[in-house]
Amino acid sequence: MSSFEQRCVNTIRTLSIDGVQQANSGHPGMPMGMADAAFVLWTEFLRHNPSNPNWINRDRFVLSAGHGSMLLYSLLHLTGYDLPLDELRDFRQWGSKTPGHPEFGLTPGVETTTGPLGQGFATAVGMAIAATKLSGHINTDDNKLIDHTIYGICSDGDLMEGVSHEAASLAGHLRLGNLVFLYDDNQITIDGSTELSFTEDVPARFKAYGWHTITVDGHNREEIRSALSVAHTVTDKPVLISCKTRIGYGSPAKEGTSGVHGAPLGTDEVSRTKAVYGLPDQPFYIDEDVLAYFRKAVEAGRHLEESWNASLAALPANKKEFLSQLTNAGQTIDVTSYLPVFEPDEKGMATRKASRLVLDAIAPHIPGVMGGSADLSASNLTDFSGHEVFSAQNRTGNYLNYGIREHAMGALMNGMALHGSIRPYGGTFLVFLDYCKPALRLAALMKQPVVYVFTHDSIGLGEDGPTHQPVEHIASLRSIPNVLVIRPADASETAAAWAEAFKRTDGPTVLVLTRQNLPEPRRNAENKASMLSKGAYVFAEPKQGRPESIIISTGSEFHIALKAWEELNARGKAVRLVSMPSWELFAMQDKAYQDSVLPPTITKRVSVEAGSTMGWHRYTGDNGVTLGLDRFGESAPYQRLYAEFGFTPEAIIRALGY
Amino acid sequence: MSSFEQRCVNTIRTLSIDGVQQANSGHPGMPMGMADAAFVLWTEFLRHNPSNPNWINRDRFVLSAGHGSMLLYSLLHLTGYDLPLDELRDFRQWGSKTPGHPEFGLTPGVETTTGPLGQGFATAVGMAIAATKLSGHINTDDNKLIDHTIYGICSDGDLMEGVSHEAASLAGHLRLGNLVFLYDDNQITIDGSTELSFTEDVPARFKAYGWHTITVDGHNREEIRSALSVAHTVTDKPVLISCKTRIGYGSPAKEGTSGVHGAPLGTDEVSRTKAVYGLPDQPFYIDEDVLAYFRKAVEAGRHLEESWNASLAALPANKKEFLSQLTNAGQTIDVTSYLPVFEPDEKGMATRKASRLVLDAIAPHIPGVMGGSADLSASNLTDFSGHEVFSAQNRTGNYLNYGIREHAMGALMNGMALHGSIRPYGGTFLVFLDYCKPALRLAALMKQPVVYVFTHDSIGLGEDGPTHQPVEHIASLRSIPNVLVIRPADASETAAAWAEAFKRTDGPTVLVLTRQNLPEPRRNAENKASMLSKGAYVFAEPKQGRPESIIISTGSEFHIALKAWEELNARGKAVRLVSMPSWELFAMQDKAYQDSVLPPTITKRVSVEAGSTMGWHRYTGDNGVTLGLDRFGESAPYQRLYAEFGFTPEAIIRALGY
Repeated sequence: MSSFEQRCVNTIRTLSIDGVQQANSGHPGMPMGMADAAFVLWTEFLRHNPSNPNWINRDRFVLSAGHGSMLLYSLLHLTGYDLPLDELRDFRQWGSKTPGHPEFGLTPGVETTTGPLGQGFATAVGMAIAATKLSGHINTDDNKLIDHTIYGICSDGDLMEGVSHEAASLAGHLRLGNLVFLYDDNQITIDGSTELSFTEDVPARFKAYGWHTITVDGHNREEIRSALSVAHTVTDKPVLISCKTRIGYGSPAKEGTSGVHGAPLGTDEVSRTKAVYGLPDQPFYIDEDVLAYFRKAVEAGRHLEESWNASLAALPANKKEFLSQLTNAGQTIDVTSYLPVFEPDEKGMATRKASRLVLDAIAPHIPGVMGGSADLSASNLTDFSGHEVFSAQNRTGNYLNYGIREHAMGALMNGMALHGSIRPYGGTFLVFLDYCKPALRLAALMKQPVVYVFTHDSIGLGEDGPTHQPVEHIASLRSIPNVLVIRPADASETAAAWAEAFKRTDGPTVLVLTRQNLPEPRRNAENKASMLSKGAYVFAEPKQGRPESIIISTGSEFHIALKAWEELNARGKAVRLVSMPSWELFAMQDKAYQDSVLPPTITKRVSVEAGSTMGWHRYTGDNGVTLGLDRFGESAPYQRLYAEFGFTPEAIIRALGY
Repeated sequence: MSSFEQRCVNTIRTLSIDGVQQANSGHPGMPMGMADAAFVLWTEFLRHNPSNPNWINRDRFVLSAGHGSMLLYSLLHLTGYDLPLDELRDFRQWGSKTPGHPEFGLTPGVETTTGPLGQGFATAVGMAIAATKLSGHINTDDNKLIDHTIYGICSDGDLMEGVSHEAASLAGHLRLGNLVFLYDDNQITIDGSTELSFTEDVPARFKAYGWHTITVDGHNREEIRSALSVAHTVTDKPVLISCKTRIGYGSPAKEGTSGVHGAPLGTDEVSRTKAVYGLPDQPFYIDEDVLAYFRKAVEAGRHLEESWNASLAALPANKKEFLSQLTNAGQTIDVTSYLPVFEPDEKGMATRKASRLVLDAIAPHIPGVMGGSADLSASNLTDFSGHEVFSAQNRTGNYLNYGIREHAMGALMNGMALHGSIRPYGGTFLVFLDYCKPALRLAALMKQPVVYVFTHDSIGLGEDGPTHQPVEHIASLRSIPNVLVIRPADASETAAAWAEAFKRTDGPTVLVLTRQNLPEPRRNAENKASMLSKGAYVFAEPKQGRPESIIISTGSEFHIALKAWEELNARGKAVRLVSMPSWELFAMQDKAYQDSVLPPTITKRVSVEAGSTMGWHRYTGDNGVTLGLDRFGESAPYQRLYAEFGFTPEAIIRALGY
């Protein structure tokens, strides 16, 4: 192992080994096994500019096997990203840019947060869709300005996870020719050999999805080179390159064992391994010529972007303008002037229906909008009028049929948002939050402005029964950091909720909408629906006297609360009615506003929401009552369910002790 | 369409159509499309006893495409289960036995609750494992007493969902020869043609998993018959029979369209369709000879079980005894006498480690125990000493390597528990609750006593960082109805927690355990760890005076709370310390006990838990403080994280205002 190229590859290995050893924590085996493939990809194929990690036409690299983070940190340092060696020394330490798993937004060159297996793989599919769509919009016959490729490395674990199936099936269906994954086929998982649990024929499975597959010796760089060259020529299918590798490559005692998967080698084995590599036994050692070779990426990257800028200059002005709009897709978009107005109406409409009318009005004004649904378009009403389906035939579509793949939908939306050219929203039933939560959590962690349209939000969906009736889901959503949850009470609040969603730039927004119709109440200057931006507001004060009690409600229970308020008013009881569509927005208000809506002196309170009562005590207080549903629902028409489970004006009145 | 057999098949169709029409809600298309296949399976292959739906050696039938519930209800009624025609007339009504989606425990003959797509498919794989294991234990060379097959019907949607991939891959790996799925390949989803999003080669994909695959015309009963016969001879692989069908078969206007997927036909189209079938236009009409033909299943089933009982009688006594134990796997098991005792120890151990020691002691005493982990055995410490891995080679193993397939793990555990012969538990990191929640929710809904071992339960896992650090997960678990969540504070409470888990028969138990060591405190008669069964208890009272404030804590923060209590005692402050490992157990106690632990008069309270504060206000009250973590974590050694995020004795003391 003495050639110069071999020294380069081994330097990736030793940096990774040293980072893990220094932290006394981490996963050295995968970087050691995939260093050959990563070397060829990063030095010969990846078109990037280390000085500008935000260049829009850069190739993306996704390390789906995020536990091998030291591989990525080593490559970023070596190729000249702003990641000094000291950061590698601080691997997994407080305040470093080298956390245990790669985190988007923290480390230059990290394209997405990975670690939860399968997520990176599916996120890369989303990026490939975004790149395809962007090139569809911008490129002309003689100017292929947008031509980047999404590369990734995935592991056995990624491919065992269900989300990889969902995303791979969709990627094959959509014929994403700009997606190339290197699969680290090392036959080892944390628990031992893949023989324990994973003996499927991975290439055959991917062929069945419509992928092009290639198998190589993952330590034979010529084979890797040739496979990546072929991958570049396959433009109508995603490509999976299975790399047969040996985990912990080069470690005399641990190569090919699960012992090297998730634990440091130990100082003695580090020394022995470096001896095998022919490198000095010195932590974080890099030969000057090795560094110089990797650092060519800096100059090369600068040239790449410069020459790209020349092509950009040659683009027609309207395309240039559109490109600029698309690459700002994640910014605040003010849609308030386009919002429809909903008149008072006793019959009203479902908030999912209102959402559709809002989308009809605003979608044309959102650059890079990409709607979609996990095969429930006609139920979620996410398919705004005039949408075009994105497909293998139509690369400029603005609507995705995700199929019955909620988890992939979430991860793909992350990838599209991260790419920077798409503003995605996607719909399913609220109960199927459970299928896509891992991706929603990552959107929150990565601060990506994706929007979830969750309809059929309670027992109000009726006959489909408890398997489809969310109970705990709103509570679950509210417990996730950095997720904005909005449950509008009527069509007007639904419009205001969409305005909030497109205002937001630093995290996901979740709209929680009904299947059933809700009346549209009369509003005035004080209680206009735009007050939703405060999270909670006084909808109605007692017709006489100062309020002595408060009804707080959200979404589809609000109109029931309103009936209770009306009845109590008729009885001369002084009750305030508060609409509280969003806890998170309310929490952002100052204490003075919060106290003005829920004065500490008024302790007689009731909350009304057809879901788990968990967390409501914070707002109802020690003397309050929480009306909710802390059990599973039942299958029946929803009016019957509301009566049986006690969501009635009478129950609210009783709860207040009147 | 006039043959007798055709009339039988069409009667399945008309009952299904009528049920949906009467409810004015539901999915007629799938029952109409799959009636031919279901007819052949139910009248010629399925070995069951309608008079005894609990016969242990019955074949299981799983309708994974649960939205087609009227297909199953029609078959159950026709073949003589205790499901009168009036129940079919009450489809989707309050109090009926015919809810929108099939529900286990409500309707005789329904083997599992389905509806959320993919779940039934994966649950059936769990049943097939249980049946295989049971036959491995019980059968002898000349007595194949246990020889039932798990049959199912699945849809496009089932096979798009990621969990189907996970479960199918594992089923192929385990060579489950007793599993046969009919795949309703109707090319239609709710949103339209599968061309929109699903063009993978399903049989090729299943071949890659190691399945035997057959493709038939789903309306050609000879082909179905022949395929099911072949399936019966394939004993070393699961079998997928792809049935090319036409959704809404026979409806002049709607056959082959998505319009018939999830909506009633409408009365006119019902009439026209019945005319095509040659059946009277009369709701819930069944010809006498048709009913008589189906009802042969009653007599045949009685004979089947009688002749099986004869084989049972011939079984050696020890096998008979073991069979009886196994078929009571879901009952209360009292393990208290086997629990290890943990001595006070300042260094202590991680609760995951304590859990392993407990399992070592109790697992041999649990009939039908099946441990496992989603490829984290060495981290979850779920692999009790002396376990044997269940595999294609070892059919009597009591430990499953699920691979990196958390979702399948959850669903397979449901299937094993439902089968009735296995008491399953499975492990992963707490953060990956997000990957398996849909299955956990079904366990709660179906009241199945499965156990989840969730380790690495907070920022206490340290360096792996925010992708792996649960924050909202304990709150999320607590919000699900009928889930028992226990977060023990030390090894002794961990032992008590396992005792609760095996006591439970009517729902899942979740153990929330640490990666890091926790000290083992001194306990006495008043605060012994078995007090955990009360959910919360007074661990320590002030050394002098009556308590004026309360510290409430759980799990790994308890020892920090104990330090705060000690310091406050030293300062002469009268503080009570409460350990609260389980909200659910505490909620089951009477008010007198609850008030004795948390007296309403003591309002100065602080809760301490390294996770979302959501819901804690209920226990801390208006004057209390909740110490928790309402943001994502960071990557660093855990001691540093605890200090940075304020989980220290000092912070607790400050929170109480001392």
